[in-house]
Amino acid sequence: MRTIDLNCDMGESFGAWRMGADAAVMPWITSANIACGFHAGDPLTMLATVRAAAAAGVAIGAHIGLPDLVGFGRRALAVSPAELHAMTVVQCGALAAVARTANVRIGHLKPHGALYHMAEQEPALAQAIVDAIRDVDANVRLVGLAGGALVRAGEAAGLAIAHEAFADRRYRMDGYLVPRDQPGAVIEDIDAAVRQAVALAVDGLVTSVDGATIRVHADTVCVHGDRPDAAVFAQALNEGLRAAGVALHRCGADA
Amino acid sequence: MRTIDLNCDMGESFGAWRMGADAAVMPWITSANIACGFHAGDPLTMLATVRAAAAAGVAIGAHIGLPDLVGFGRRALAVSPAELHAMTVVQCGALAAVARTANVRIGHLKPHGALYHMAEQEPALAQAIVDAIRDVDANVRLVGLAGGALVRAGEAAGLAIAHEAFADRRYRMDGYLVPRDQPGAVIEDIDAAVRQAVALAVDGLVTSVDGATIRVHADTVCVHGDRPDAAVFAQALNEGLRAAGVALHRCGADA
Amino acid sequence: MRTIDLNCDMGESFGAWRMGADAAVMPWITSANIACGFHAGDPLTMLATVRAAAAAGVAIGAHIGLPDLVGFGRRALAVSPAELHAMTVVQCGALAAVARTANVRIGHLKPHGALYHMAEQEPALAQAIVDAIRDVDANVRLVGLAGGALVRAGEAAGLAIAHEAFADRRYRMDGYLVPRDQPGAVIEDIDAAVRQAVALAVDGLVTSVDGATIRVHADTVCVHGDRPDAAVFAQALNEGLRAAGVALHRCGADA
Amino acid sequence: MRTIDLNCDMGESFGAWRMGADAAVMPWITSANIACGFHAGDPLTMLATVRAAAAAGVAIGAHIGLPDLVGFGRRALAVSPAELHAMTVVQCGALAAVARTANVRIGHLKPHGALYHMAEQEPALAQAIVDAIRDVDANVRLVGLAGGALVRAGEAAGLAIAHEAFADRRYRMDGYLVPRDQPGAVIEDIDAAVRQAVALAVDGLVTSVDGATIRVHADTVCVHGDRPDAAVFAQALNEGLRAAGVALHRCGADA
Repeated sequence: MRTIDLNCDMGESFGAWRMGADAAVMPWITSANIACGFHAGDPLTMLATVRAAAAAGVAIGAHIGLPDLVGFGRRALAVSPAELHAMTVVQCGALAAVARTANVRIGHLKPHGALYHMAEQEPALAQAIVDAIRDVDANVRLVGLAGGALVRAGEAAGLAIAHEAFADRRYRMDGYLVPRDQPGAVIEDIDAAVRQAVALAVDGLVTSVDGATIRVHADTVCVHGDRPDAAVFAQALNEGLRAAGVALHRCGADA
Repeated sequence: MRTIDLNCDMGESFGAWRMGADAAVMPWITSANIACGFHAGDPLTMLATVRAAAAAGVAIGAHIGLPDLVGFGRRALAVSPAELHAMTVVQCGALAAVARTANVRIGHLKPHGALYHMAEQEPALAQAIVDAIRDVDANVRLVGLAGGALVRAGEAAGLAIAHEAFADRRYRMDGYLVPRDQPGAVIEDIDAAVRQAVALAVDGLVTSVDGATIRVHADTVCVHGDRPDAAVFAQALNEGLRAAGVALHRCGADA
Repeated sequence: MRTIDLNCDMGESFGAWRMGADAAVMPWITSANIACGFHAGDPLTMLATVRAAAAAGVAIGAHIGLPDLVGFGRRALAVSPAELHAMTVVQCGALAAVARTANVRIGHLKPHGALYHMAEQEPALAQAIVDAIRDVDANVRLVGLAGGALVRAGEAAGLAIAHEAFADRRYRMDGYLVPRDQPGAVIEDIDAAVRQAVALAVDGLVTSVDGATIRVHADTVCVHGDRPDAAVFAQALNEGLRAAGVALHRCGADA
Repeated sequence: MRTIDLNCDMGESFGAWRMGADAAVMPWITSANIACGFHAGDPLTMLATVRAAAAAGVAIGAHIGLPDLVGFGRRALAVSPAELHAMTVVQCGALAAVARTANVRIGHLKPHGALYHMAEQEPALAQAIVDAIRDVDANVRLVGLAGGALVRAGEAAGLAIAHEAFADRRYRMDGYLVPRDQPGAVIEDIDAAVRQAVALAVDGLVTSVDGATIRVHADTVCVHGDRPDAAVFAQALNEGLRAAGVALHRCGADA
């Protein structure tokens, strides 16, 4: 039986500012990527999010980001590998301690925003993340772009990894995503997104923006929590995948 | 044989800004209170400080602070107990992960600056710190003002505690420190400070600013790292205590 | 003819995080208190808010706050008068420059959150705000609690002032507000709040929580923008006051 | 008679952290580039620095930076032109208000760190800075790399500009600086640096790292305040230039 994980960014509120529909999305996902205070999140938000995920049986992961609150970690910042290594250790450790208060553990780690892409482009940054995981907890699974440089670096270092694919983003023929600032980057239609998720999970195939059928291995599918219809989207993915015979299974360390 | 710990605040640099004389002080102390990024410190500084302490065989502790970089954590901030609990968990967890990269563990925790005093004055804040330690790692020793509310709260909760006294601060008859903004608060003369440390360690006695002899139980003596002569001061304390037959012994979890 | 100003906190978003219903509230108010980046707001948000206010003919004021984003400026912070003076200058200057890009000027200044109350309780802090206004632009009108210490300090220094009253907060017999954490502090019913605003504007009277009729001089009435029904509330106040024969008139420097 | 300005970065302390030797350097320079709180500086530091510069008769300029305290503004951050425009307005306005408290005015503006280089490489960023100056105070002189894209954009927009050259950095044949991470980038020897400054001021010539004589027009020479010998260096430049018959003259708006 095919299995897949549904992951969603969570805990992106900050102080008095709310973001996302965490409570509404939580029932439909299997893994939560929780912001660790650098690009979003604050101690109370981290704690509340971990508790909610633990109560829902959702796996907990560190969503590490750049130290840029006002830019929400979406602006590339020229950090050195040593800085990224130390930042990853700190964020991972902060969330791990929060998880301990709820008697759960961090199962995975995924870079957020600009860092997700920087890790694909600069091998030394990918390696810094890998090294940080090995230094802090070698059981943590590294989540990155399916077939990309980050997961390959993790695999080479002996880490558990998860290839991430996207239900609502269009792919280019080379397996990369159509950049967000180009037309057709996002699949707005939920049914079409569910069909793409099912094709990914069942056949490991996706139709690229050029109409070609490409092979994408996916262990986890990203549920974008910043869509206005995030909860409906998450529910549709959850139900559509299960209706297609795909079991939903969290991808973290204890998976 | 009497033993005592010498602790000093460390890792208080921030980015390009340097503070303290960590390298010069390190050989003379037994415990380092390391800033965790809230009032001072940043990931790279935390990492470098932990490595230096580990290399010197100095015990590592979390120096938790208020989220006020520009005020260096010295300005009282009306945080709620829930906020302080979550903040303590996050700071403790961040430093614990950094320590893991150097194959060492956090042995103690001490609140910094305004938080040190707030924990003495508001029982709910003291309890929040105690709860955080129990939630994250119940083996961590809680360091606070000798005989004060924080260590009493820790003791009541079953935590290991360390009573902290000061070599270079004058005491009032009631066992509290003369506030810094009053004349005679600081003992500038190093010999006098060493004599006070020896009296604390050997006899558990200190002469108050009013000339009275008062009883102060001290497990650890604070070496102020922000004195211009911090390294000389640390060395004098170290040598003076040992010359008086006091063994220096780190007070952390593994003590 | 009686006139009054309706002021509302605006520009409290931060980066990717939205707060308030600025666009929906703007048509119904006469003065906008705009966050200056310390407790909320960021450069782009400040610019967009100033432009929207200028386009709507709404007066622009600096809503100065404590440097505590995660606490939204609502937690008392023990700043010194010198720090508050410098912080006020910086925030006021930042917004003044933003206003200049839209060819408008700052007309008023109001402290936010915990600072609003700190200025009532510590005369040296009230004086620091007054001094900052005199140093930067002595034409800026100082807005504070009606009859309170801040406006009195401003008046004594020769500043234009505006006494602020609240439509939806209950008053004690001594003219102070019932604290938010006490029952009955907030008037949830919009009609009742409008009646209180009309009584304030027409007669300078308000019925205290104890049933006494007390005298409160109000130049401006605060529209709480953080009510879920903020826009409806603002519209009701605007229409209710005008129906009672009160002209709405912005209270800023050019009033 | 040839004239030149000597500018130095000032006010780069932050809270309890000290940086630079402002008091020792101030007597020898003619213009101070003052950090505005984004990459360094805080309200009290800004105020103290402006007062010291005003007392010394040194011209005051806004040293605008990226919002990255921990990175000291030295790490490239992918800000949009709109963000940079708004950030420049805010920083410029903050310092202008501080200057007003000391009865002086901002005379110039210079981007700091990574932003200095970003403005050379991305025309839209250079234009954003130019637009911000025009929006806030069109009399402010724009300081940038001699002959570079930023000053050319300023000139095209009708702004007063100042071409900046470096006494202690080696030049490539194309007029650009040898990057700091390459050998020979910095001229450590003070006499050699003074000779380069004199050649720049008197003849508009500099010998490149390859031995070629290149033409560099300089209105202002940068005194690096982060050299350990900054004050000695500043004094040597000041005295060496005057001994060579060059008058030192601040380059700001009132020059």
